[in-house]
Amino acid sequence: MSLLKETLLKIEPVDKEKMSQAREHVDGLLKPVGSLGVLENIAIQIAGINPDILGGELKKAVLVFAADHGICEEDITSAPQPVTALMTHFIAEGKSGVGVIAKKAGAEVFVTDVGVNAEITNPKVRNKKIRLGTGNMAKQEAMTRLEAEKSFEIGIETALEMIKNGYNILATGEMGIGNTTPSSAIFSVLGSLSPEEVTGIGANLSEEKLVKKSSVIREAIALHNPDPKDPLDVLAKVGGLEIGAMAGVMLAGASMKVPVLIDGFISSAAAALAVGLNPDVYDYLICSHNSAEKGAKKGLELIGFKPFLHMDMRLGEGSGAALAFNIVEAAQGMYNDMGTFSQAGIDIV
Amino acid sequence: MSLLKETLLKIEPVDKEKMSQAREHVDGLLKPVGSLGVLENIAIQIAGINPDILGGELKKAVLVFAADHGICEEDITSAPQPVTALMTHFIAEGKSGVGVIAKKAGAEVFVTDVGVNAEITNPKVRNKKIRLGTGNMAKQEAMTRLEAEKSFEIGIETALEMIKNGYNILATGEMGIGNTTPSSAIFSVLGSLSPEEVTGIGANLSEEKLVKKSSVIREAIALHNPDPKDPLDVLAKVGGLEIGAMAGVMLAGASMKVPVLIDGFISSAAAALAVGLNPDVYDYLICSHNSAEKGAKKGLELIGFKPFLHMDMRLGEGSGAALAFNIVEAAQGMYNDMGTFSQAGIDIV
Repeated sequence: MSLLKETLLKIEPVDKEKMSQAREHVDGLLKPVGSLGVLENIAIQIAGINPDILGGELKKAVLVFAADHGICEEDITSAPQPVTALMTHFIAEGKSGVGVIAKKAGAEVFVTDVGVNAEITNPKVRNKKIRLGTGNMAKQEAMTRLEAEKSFEIGIETALEMIKNGYNILATGEMGIGNTTPSSAIFSVLGSLSPEEVTGIGANLSEEKLVKKSSVIREAIALHNPDPKDPLDVLAKVGGLEIGAMAGVMLAGASMKVPVLIDGFISSAAAALAVGLNPDVYDYLICSHNSAEKGAKKGLELIGFKPFLHMDMRLGEGSGAALAFNIVEAAQGMYNDMGTFSQAGIDIV
Repeated sequence: MSLLKETLLKIEPVDKEKMSQAREHVDGLLKPVGSLGVLENIAIQIAGINPDILGGELKKAVLVFAADHGICEEDITSAPQPVTALMTHFIAEGKSGVGVIAKKAGAEVFVTDVGVNAEITNPKVRNKKIRLGTGNMAKQEAMTRLEAEKSFEIGIETALEMIKNGYNILATGEMGIGNTTPSSAIFSVLGSLSPEEVTGIGANLSEEKLVKKSSVIREAIALHNPDPKDPLDVLAKVGGLEIGAMAGVMLAGASMKVPVLIDGFISSAAAALAVGLNPDVYDYLICSHNSAEKGAKKGLELIGFKPFLHMDMRLGEGSGAALAFNIVEAAQGMYNDMGTFSQAGIDIV
């Protein structure tokens, strides 16, 4: 059996009974019922995933996947393709946005090349290159179905390795010039949304190029006609290698009962694919921030996520997810360290 | 000269020149211009307040003020008045929401009694009691003008003491059963808003009592006719002792060039008064979360704040502000530790 199939079969629903018990505990804490909102929800969710993680110390990793996109040929990005390789290097060196945010949060960043269109010599970048970037989906399928499966599996393998090494909360991140385009395409297909509704400026695109970007997406979808009920087909035809890998991390997290923090627009597209493959994955994902990228809100709604960080960020790399680690730790603090009404001898719930 | 007057005179505008320089630095960091949103804004704001704080380690304090409210006589709260004293004790013991959140953030919590209607024997609660709770504003002014001034000054003194002890970022918090009522009244007066627009359920009020709460506020405002141009008059007639103290912290922070994190609805009412006394204070305040209390959104808009944490929280105590310390540290990380385009030899801004 393939690693992907094996992983999908291993995923169980979260433990609703443990969540009810956790809700009862939270309702007995020294505060008006419900008054800690999202912190309560996160704690209860993690109780359903794995109470040991809720009660223990978090060992945090951001898994960043880098790949290039053939669609860059269509001149719909603000930065040139070689920036992917450059930034992949700088992310591995800790000099990018996710690096400094993760460091403040006490998290480690691991960078994997799944398809950068250049040789990367930095030994800190893990080499799992599937191909030198995707094909230009305006003219051909982004990748084969086998490559799509491979991208999922690299995400799964990477996450399993991290979990084996003791990491008990993962965040997804990416680097890939042009990767808002496949993300918009994925949401357009999965949500039956017009490309205009889910296509934004990425890293500062001009108005003119934005119009072109939407129409390129429309044409690519018309050309390949991906099946919204088949996430592998969608990924192969209009997706990206790093998007598949991030979806793989989510599947692996769910299969090992480890929560996965979702970053912004591109991570959300990966989440939509992962949840499409197995709806139980949803309960293992924690949505962090509301990316400023147009389409992010609609995309999150499509999956059923409600972000709690409204930072007006649109950097990617996992930077928004990394910001949310501390929020999860605050939820742990609430759950483990607050006094209870019964301890306090108060009866006012 | 009174301490309040002295403090108000000492407040200078933030340094716009330093903010421009900081903006230039941020725009040269290894990321698309503007793509770190609120983190960029916070870093630039603190550069304008005091670059040393931006560049150094944060020493964080949450200053919580506790007081009671005569308006509780009108039966418009879900919890009885003695809960103020009990919770003041538990906040000081670190067993409440703000305690556990602050601990995770590496912040200390200091609790000051400015007007609890009971003797508090816990030595960890600083005793600065002005009176045993406010008067019932439905029948009499909440406090005298002199007491209002005193409440501001206790906040100023407390903040100055903390700043002297090396704390370089402060957050405001409160405990006071009934204190969403004066907060709604303050916003209603300052913003010429109907009480219904800014009155919510506080700690889980019933629908019936909510209607009564709005009408009590309406009557109190009609009875005392506070002058919206005179924040001391507003505080004295329809405010609360802990609200004055929190406003004092903000004034002191501004006077000493120290940023102050604002918590939710009640802290925002204090911010509205502080900014009313001196509009320059605004630039020293960092708004944290969007309280779930009805009226919070309108209140924040009135001051011109845009919260970035949407946690659906409505606990008070400074719990939302304490959650934001880590966000400020992430902004520091971005500013101090990210690579720059020029270092990287990239020219793609």
